[in-house]
Amino acid sequence: MTDLERLIDQYCEGWSCPSPEAREALIRRSLTEDATYTDPRVDNLNVPGLLDHIARIQQSRPGAKVIRTSAVDSHHGLARFNWHVVLPDGTTLPEGIDVIELSADGARIRSIIGFFGPLRNRPAADA
Amino acid sequence: MTDLERLIDQYCEGWSCPSPEAREALIRRSLTEDATYTDPRVDNLNVPGLLDHIARIQQSRPGAKVIRTSAVDSHHGLARFNWHVVLPDGTTLPEGIDVIELSADGARIRSIIGFFGPLRNRPAADA
Repeated sequence: MTDLERLIDQYCEGWSCPSPEAREALIRRSLTEDATYTDPRVDNLNVPGLLDHIARIQQSRPGAKVIRTSAVDSHHGLARFNWHVVLPDGTTLPEGIDVIELSADGARIRSIIGFFGPLRNRPAADA
Repeated sequence: MTDLERLIDQYCEGWSCPSPEAREALIRRSLTEDATYTDPRVDNLNVPGLLDHIARIQQSRPGAKVIRTSAVDSHHGLARFNWHVVLPDGTTLPEGIDVIELSADGARIRSIIGFFGPLRNRPAADA
């Protein structure tokens, strides 16, 4: 695995970690202090806001894990990867994609944009 | 089609347009003045830089068109869509994805991040 893959997996582990202290350590180790997070449900969260958001999601689906499902594709300090949620009974939710921006040294994530589920096909009538 | 889909298709038409004047008009109508463009080949181009880049690409594959292939998925002033290049003989190149940020009024694109080809699967050994 590359350093970038390890960084992304550490971040996903933060989403998956049931201990609030260990989760915060993983997330803070993965993100810059001024990092931002946006997905379909939340807009432009800072790190404390993201930690609260993950805590709420973990309460709604205890034991769920976020697992990277694709290779990491990166260029110019940007990267994309797919991930899914695995529930404790092994059920997987539809894949999402995250697009991240890295810090100048590449060691941390400074912004995350997430989208949920696969991209739908373009309607034939519209092509 | 939604206004956002029309905006994105107008931008793709800019990539596909053989006339430099019409191309510039389409691209300028689609982007904010301070818009930036990054893909695996170029980093953080401004609008004139993007126009030069498109001109070079059109010289390398005359008659090629960039066509949106998916629905547009958007939230919080962000959007993603898939696209591919169609060569004059009908050959299609592998799908890429663009993630864009919109201007505050949603009428123009203010940043574009592109990735080429499908995301590869995560190697089994690494999971």
